[in-house]
Amino acid sequence: MDKKYNVEVCFSPFHIPLYELSRKAVVVIDVYRATSAIVAALGSGVERIIPVSTLEEARKYRDKGYITAAERQGAVVDGFDLGNSPLSFVNGQYKGKTVVLSTSNGTKALLKATAAKEIVVGAFLNQTAVADYLAESHESVMFLCAGWRDRFNLEDTIAAGAMSQLLLERGWNTECDSCLASMRLYDMAKVDIEGFMHQASHTNRLKHLQLHEDIVYCNSIDLFDVVPIFNAKGEICLKQTHGIHAS
Amino acid sequence: MDKKYNVEVCFSPFHIPLYELSRKAVVVIDVYRATSAIVAALGSGVERIIPVSTLEEARKYRDKGYITAAERQGAVVDGFDLGNSPLSFVNGQYKGKTVVLSTSNGTKALLKATAAKEIVVGAFLNQTAVADYLAESHESVMFLCAGWRDRFNLEDTIAAGAMSQLLLERGWNTECDSCLASMRLYDMAKVDIEGFMHQASHTNRLKHLQLHEDIVYCNSIDLFDVVPIFNAKGEICLKQTHGIHAS
Repeated sequence: MDKKYNVEVCFSPFHIPLYELSRKAVVVIDVYRATSAIVAALGSGVERIIPVSTLEEARKYRDKGYITAAERQGAVVDGFDLGNSPLSFVNGQYKGKTVVLSTSNGTKALLKATAAKEIVVGAFLNQTAVADYLAESHESVMFLCAGWRDRFNLEDTIAAGAMSQLLLERGWNTECDSCLASMRLYDMAKVDIEGFMHQASHTNRLKHLQLHEDIVYCNSIDLFDVVPIFNAKGEICLKQTHGIHAS
Repeated sequence: MDKKYNVEVCFSPFHIPLYELSRKAVVVIDVYRATSAIVAALGSGVERIIPVSTLEEARKYRDKGYITAAERQGAVVDGFDLGNSPLSFVNGQYKGKTVVLSTSNGTKALLKATAAKEIVVGAFLNQTAVADYLAESHESVMFLCAGWRDRFNLEDTIAAGAMSQLLLERGWNTECDSCLASMRLYDMAKVDIEGFMHQASHTNRLKHLQLHEDIVYCNSIDLFDVVPIFNAKGEICLKQTHGIHAS
């Protein structure tokens, strides 16, 4: 087995300085809910998403007439059209549109990964499409969990574990303990992701906000066969892949 | 249940800036092998251990006549008496002595935790003594995994999970996903710690160095009923606990 096909998992954007990214695809994962929302939006016909880190930037886009989504602490920020609920994007209302998105953890992780060879957006919603694409197009991959306030969280970790397993099934290797731990945790979680996540801190925070429907949706596997790429222009668009991954 | 009895796990010294430590006991864990060696040494009659971060400092102590242990990349550093093998300390040879210790990850973690209310040294070797002491003496605890080169590792995580479980069994709480993950991983590992660790990256690194006997020793549960404390004088000594934890 060729060692160059290598998988790593990084538990938090805070850890990025410890990794050399220039030859790696980085898959950013923020299951609840930023990357799930991006996958659902692009999978439902949104043309592009522009992630911005601050509310100030988001307001500037909004004032120019862009559809603008902004979330802080799990809620839609006052004065914005949308938050980061994936369900806001799936009814086809924003087909062909550009959406500007600012969230607590997910957009921050995306913007911190810009040293990578390519930045991919992953979630349970598109896990197999992501693994297939990585296996076709890259030799070294790091799954970057957005975490919560720069700390480890369970939901992003088990999604990283799920996608790592898909790569290992395709013959890839890992020598990364975070990756091994993620896969072990996913093994425990997979028969009942909702039950497993029931005890996690972030799930409880979202529960207080009555986002149960969102959580169930974000835990769904492979609803979309799409691979969103965060490109050098600062936009997230679907990868054009000879029709293989067209939704 | 009173929420003030709170457990957290921090996967790496690199993460310390994210935590407020002044009201917490911090338990530093470097299973392979620094904290296991400290527990074995103090449990076998060594009077005090002085951890130092650099080899330069270690050499200064050595030149003054101290027994000096220095490890880098798993091996004894040239010119030093000892490395970080716990087995070097268990034959009573250093009874009543002071030992100066410099290691790759463990001593660094100790020296980075100095903002804590109290710093405790933990390992599988003294896990129950540590949990008993924390339950008697503290209201908030963070287990700090030394990790490997500032990254997550499995062995320190499952030891943190073992001690977290002992505290939760004593009525403590956690809202920390790292703690939940550690306990889940320990649940999987506990029936066969050696088998579970077989795939971990650090174990493989140590295997190349033929340290199998050390690994088996470091995986042993509760060989010592001692609680080493890293005090404000920069020394690690046994906690005097009315005889409860005397070895």
